Amino acid sequence: MDNDEVLNTFGKKVQEQRLKQGLSQEKLAEISGLDRTYISSMERGRRNVSLLNIVKVARALSIPPSDFLEGIRELDE
Amino acid sequence: MDNDEVLNTFGKKVQEQRLKQGLSQEKLAEISGLDRTYISSMERGRRNVSLLNIVKVARALSIPPSDFLEGIRELDE
Repeated sequence: MDNDEVLNTFGKKVQEQRLKQGLSQEKLAEISGLDRTYISSMERGRRNVSLLNIVKVARALSIPPSDFLEGIRELDE
Repeated sequence: MDNDEVLNTFGKKVQEQRLKQGLSQEKLAEISGLDRTYISSMERGRRNVSLLNIVKVARALSIPPSDFLEGIRELDE
């Protein structure tokens, strides 16, 4: 799993949870306190998101932060 | 759980795993490809570590990246 795959896997999980809860990117941005453009690029795997922002998104979606990393395996495997 | 507590909880988990495996910070730095000073400040909760660096440390310690976020609850709780 290379860097792009890690970021893509994470981004897809965020998007999946957001859609499951019927939220727009704008709404998730509002709840999390992050920019909509940041949410958008995060979902597309273009952001090497920080731990505190992972926790902010998790809070906004009411899921445990560790859930977003499930399925992200070690790099180079 | 505020920002400092999130970063401290993460840092303590890294340190705990490193010591459990009998590794020095220098050794973990060498295996992970991160600086020893970075490892040191990460363990002390001074770094808002990125997703890719979380994965690098997890790889170096051979544990699932999500394990590091277990017990990190939502902010402001």
